[in-house]
Amino acid sequence: MIRIGVIGYGYWGPNLVRNFVESPDTRVVMVSDLKQDRLDLVQRRYPGVEVTTDFQEILNHPNIDAVAISTPVSTHFPLALQALQSGKHVLVEKPMTTTSEDALRLIDEAERRKLILMVDHTFVYTGAVRKIRELIDKGSLGDIYYYDSTRVNLGLFQSDVDVIWDLAVHDLSIMDYILPSSPVAVSATGVGHVTGATENIAYVTVFYDNSLIAHLNVNWLSPVKIRRTLIGGSKQMIVYDDIESSEKIKVYDKGVTVKNGSDESRYKLLVSYRSGDIYSPQIDVTEALRIEAQHFADCIKTGKAPITDGHAGLRVVSVLEAATKSMKQQGRAVQLKAQNLAVA
Amino acid sequence: MIRIGVIGYGYWGPNLVRNFVESPDTRVVMVSDLKQDRLDLVQRRYPGVEVTTDFQEILNHPNIDAVAISTPVSTHFPLALQALQSGKHVLVEKPMTTTSEDALRLIDEAERRKLILMVDHTFVYTGAVRKIRELIDKGSLGDIYYYDSTRVNLGLFQSDVDVIWDLAVHDLSIMDYILPSSPVAVSATGVGHVTGATENIAYVTVFYDNSLIAHLNVNWLSPVKIRRTLIGGSKQMIVYDDIESSEKIKVYDKGVTVKNGSDESRYKLLVSYRSGDIYSPQIDVTEALRIEAQHFADCIKTGKAPITDGHAGLRVVSVLEAATKSMKQQGRAVQLKAQNLAVA
Amino acid sequence: MIRIGVIGYGYWGPNLVRNFVESPDTRVVMVSDLKQDRLDLVQRRYPGVEVTTDFQEILNHPNIDAVAISTPVSTHFPLALQALQSGKHVLVEKPMTTTSEDALRLIDEAERRKLILMVDHTFVYTGAVRKIRELIDKGSLGDIYYYDSTRVNLGLFQSDVDVIWDLAVHDLSIMDYILPSSPVAVSATGVGHVTGATENIAYVTVFYDNSLIAHLNVNWLSPVKIRRTLIGGSKQMIVYDDIESSEKIKVYDKGVTVKNGSDESRYKLLVSYRSGDIYSPQIDVTEALRIEAQHFADCIKTGKAPITDGHAGLRVVSVLEAATKSMKQQGRAVQLKAQNLAVA
Amino acid sequence: MIRIGVIGYGYWGPNLVRNFVESPDTRVVMVSDLKQDRLDLVQRRYPGVEVTTDFQEILNHPNIDAVAISTPVSTHFPLALQALQSGKHVLVEKPMTTTSEDALRLIDEAERRKLILMVDHTFVYTGAVRKIRELIDKGSLGDIYYYDSTRVNLGLFQSDVDVIWDLAVHDLSIMDYILPSSPVAVSATGVGHVTGATENIAYVTVFYDNSLIAHLNVNWLSPVKIRRTLIGGSKQMIVYDDIESSEKIKVYDKGVTVKNGSDESRYKLLVSYRSGDIYSPQIDVTEALRIEAQHFADCIKTGKAPITDGHAGLRVVSVLEAATKSMKQQGRAVQLKAQNLAVA
Repeated sequence: MIRIGVIGYGYWGPNLVRNFVESPDTRVVMVSDLKQDRLDLVQRRYPGVEVTTDFQEILNHPNIDAVAISTPVSTHFPLALQALQSGKHVLVEKPMTTTSEDALRLIDEAERRKLILMVDHTFVYTGAVRKIRELIDKGSLGDIYYYDSTRVNLGLFQSDVDVIWDLAVHDLSIMDYILPSSPVAVSATGVGHVTGATENIAYVTVFYDNSLIAHLNVNWLSPVKIRRTLIGGSKQMIVYDDIESSEKIKVYDKGVTVKNGSDESRYKLLVSYRSGDIYSPQIDVTEALRIEAQHFADCIKTGKAPITDGHAGLRVVSVLEAATKSMKQQGRAVQLKAQNLAVA
Repeated sequence: MIRIGVIGYGYWGPNLVRNFVESPDTRVVMVSDLKQDRLDLVQRRYPGVEVTTDFQEILNHPNIDAVAISTPVSTHFPLALQALQSGKHVLVEKPMTTTSEDALRLIDEAERRKLILMVDHTFVYTGAVRKIRELIDKGSLGDIYYYDSTRVNLGLFQSDVDVIWDLAVHDLSIMDYILPSSPVAVSATGVGHVTGATENIAYVTVFYDNSLIAHLNVNWLSPVKIRRTLIGGSKQMIVYDDIESSEKIKVYDKGVTVKNGSDESRYKLLVSYRSGDIYSPQIDVTEALRIEAQHFADCIKTGKAPITDGHAGLRVVSVLEAATKSMKQQGRAVQLKAQNLAVA
Repeated sequence: MIRIGVIGYGYWGPNLVRNFVESPDTRVVMVSDLKQDRLDLVQRRYPGVEVTTDFQEILNHPNIDAVAISTPVSTHFPLALQALQSGKHVLVEKPMTTTSEDALRLIDEAERRKLILMVDHTFVYTGAVRKIRELIDKGSLGDIYYYDSTRVNLGLFQSDVDVIWDLAVHDLSIMDYILPSSPVAVSATGVGHVTGATENIAYVTVFYDNSLIAHLNVNWLSPVKIRRTLIGGSKQMIVYDDIESSEKIKVYDKGVTVKNGSDESRYKLLVSYRSGDIYSPQIDVTEALRIEAQHFADCIKTGKAPITDGHAGLRVVSVLEAATKSMKQQGRAVQLKAQNLAVA
Repeated sequence: MIRIGVIGYGYWGPNLVRNFVESPDTRVVMVSDLKQDRLDLVQRRYPGVEVTTDFQEILNHPNIDAVAISTPVSTHFPLALQALQSGKHVLVEKPMTTTSEDALRLIDEAERRKLILMVDHTFVYTGAVRKIRELIDKGSLGDIYYYDSTRVNLGLFQSDVDVIWDLAVHDLSIMDYILPSSPVAVSATGVGHVTGATENIAYVTVFYDNSLIAHLNVNWLSPVKIRRTLIGGSKQMIVYDDIESSEKIKVYDKGVTVKNGSDESRYKLLVSYRSGDIYSPQIDVTEALRIEAQHFADCIKTGKAPITDGHAGLRVVSVLEAATKSMKQQGRAVQLKAQNLAVA
């Protein structure tokens, strides 16, 4: 039984608490939040869980093995660092930190202390994303040509991060998990429409060392909610629509084949189109966070590295850093540092 | 009665011919195409129309007042120039030319000869785009924040232009017509997946001198066809889905309001969200090309400048040029020349 | 503070308990269920709530004012009757009873004892249905022509009721609330595909004394989930799609107008079509059961009749009875008894 | 080369003419219509085709082998009969006649004269319906449980037929082609909302001799256009949405299995649910009428019976007759006569 302390009971914290409560392998010992009304809510729902406005109580608690951190992004690094230094395993909300330096520091601290450091890249644990990885791994798509995601809605304006760090982070964590190669450069554009706020609309292109290209369209000011990703391959293509309840993934047996031979047309290349059946595989509908909570407990018990370990967190933060940097320069490409992209 | 010659009876030419045939103010005198089987088709459908494999016959024809050109992009300039020099009014397929220099040359030639030069920016003549312009003009949207378009499908690979010149041109012509300000710079990224072919996937950001931003996602290798544009404003927002048959335009009474006062939340700005009714205005469903053909005839008769005149064509070509240039440099912003963006 | 006992913690009971727990005006004192594992779940979630496998403990409990019954349909009548006889107010799951005689008996018992008898016609308390009623009440639709609902999915086969009593009951309760006139006869057809089970697919037509007609398509064996209702009127028409998250209700300014004058066409009547804007009104998204729980508490406090009182329950049961009777005779119309349809 | 005369150039006639013109095996010799402006349109489009306001000229024309009839329903019988008596092969619009007696008379006349009599059941020739038949024929669906179609829109009010004869006829012709058993009885309900006009909304249940049931929801007064059919089987289920452009048919690997064993639940039957992948087979997108026109020509040349021969027309008319009869009696089931349902 892994004993958990949860820091932050705002938007996402309740989901963490609920899943750690319902898992047979974990128990929630204490929850901290700066706001008393949030703690009152915890006590009404879970009378057996201790509450505090001082997160230090969690770090000092002798009966807590691991800490889950769901607080504003800027606090991830200091809280995670102190938790590791207090000898606790750590599950931290995405994005892991606000800089790659901080991310490296956490990885280092965890490795020295032989503690588990895991990032809450929730989408990686969904049935849909695991199915897409399975399809790519077994070669169904052939060479991957592009990953093209639109993730927009009328969203909460965050005060400490821009829309890239709030929304594109989801896609970057998915890409980190499913794509077979590593990004090399980023070009991003974006703008803010609310005085004093960060950019609320942004477009991020991620370049790879082959002809693979990824693009993320993120927007806090969209009248409609869209969560749709197209993944193109040389053999098959995928449409992943996370809003669809029954057919989240569709696999299209479509593509192009380049023909040899003389050009009989002035107008077109000798490109022929294949168009076949479409199928929608059944996917596991278990709540991602339930699987993730279980994985965190398993990693603590066995000592193995989590799928979304600190290195995954660092790789994602590195691209986010580069994207924001490029956005400030109207799209000038920013190269990524190879050492930040290494797999553990 | 305006007497028309049509050069090119490939993909789009038949639509031009059909609309000029059915209009009471125009008559199709002759059609040219390099392929005899295309001309055979013309004769089966319109036994009274003359055909030729030599476009010079159209230029030399004494009973032809105006020439419509629907040939590959690279031929637009020489054909349009010769037509103007032969004293014919010209309607030319989009994009008008492959360079802004050529576009300027055509504008100059037409103005000197007092001939009508019109570009076939078809979307400008659709009921949907005219309705959007009407909504923007009367201030329904407030300040325009962004124009965000996705225009993808499993499309024909063009041999003489990349996907930007083939697909983004539609959005650029729409933007030129509906947006209240002028673009100042362009950042584009893209890649080609077929050896020997041009870029088949591209992402174009267009910057304006205020916080307006536009973005175009164009792709010849998408498994699904998407034609959706989001237009965000400070008061209302529009979703324009050209694939929808019955509700092409939806207007959302949604947005954000920034509040004054002390920050009571560490996590969020004092941004409040308005969310009201959605409505879908009825739009004129007349075929755009019918309206456009009539407008061409009217301009010839009255001598007034077409809505999509040579200057509109030039403005669109200027952005296309800059986009391709930026794409070759991984997104580095390319500034637009002010003189190319002038309105006649 | 109204003190509640809940009988039955199966599929729907947890929603009742949750809403009564979260309402400031109600408190859940005890929950009964025949299965110990369901009671264990109650205790894990709500440590302060008493549990029992014997519902009699609830009926005899001196500190319980009202009982909510969410058990199989065939037990509604005996449980509700005993609860009323024990002096408890009653909220009973839909359909209220399995026969109109039983429904009349409950109404009688409640009225004699001056107790609140309310039926859980949940949809009546949704923002969507309340908005539709508002539109009809203010005359937006004109004369109501038809109510046409499709309510199908791959559903749980019930052992004690057929698909009409399980699914059509929702529409009948909505119709009872929003339609301005009373049904007079019912024709239904249906069939069962599983040996030993009840009908799993059925079609119910409800006739009114004017040209209003209602039709319900209900099916437990559909590959897709559909929850769509068309409501036609002489002035406007509504599409109510309960699966849509953002535009549940659309109002169409469409219809026909019959012209006077001579028939100029052999083929068509002089019927002209109006087609105008479409709009989607914003609707209250508060959970229906929260509003309903509050309404139950209010009625107990004030003694006023609930919107979905015993009479509403009886009217719905009367149509269900007639529908099943008609279905056994391949659609022969069954007349409804006027006394069962009276409004209190 | 089969030489065709077409009687009626109203709504559907132009499609017939166009397809017979474009087929290499047929030639349109003459078109008749009562209205001169329709004939003017023919001449503008097809200068080589003769026109007349007197259909007798077609019947008497020595160079016409076959007649296609696309006139109001009530004229089908007399025109088709005269055409057969004039020795012409006949393709007649659906529904074939207004009574089964008339249908039998045409079958008889054609058989005696060894002429082809074909009914224009267009949907039977679509790629979608042919694919569904192929799936049913090879047993993919298992036992067929139901055919459930919704076919509604804001449609033209017909003066000589009710909505069943206008819209349900499409489904009846599809059912006749794809379903493995014969209907035995019909129950229908419906109502008219326009004074002096026929029923504009109707619901038709068709019973078969096993547990197969079919249901058709047809409506001329719907605010939205729906063309969706669910087909349930014991193994797989189909959703056929004719409005979808890219995925008209979806096959769901879903269903129920009845388990043996003791009843462990008071609430549910021992019915378990299978839920697997969904796939959308590629379908032939050739225009149905092109295939049908070719089939008509082939039958004339070879003398073989058309897929949609007079007997198919009779079977459909028999169900239509029964449906209207049932509708006049508020849904009382009307038995079908076995002899009218025979396959040739």
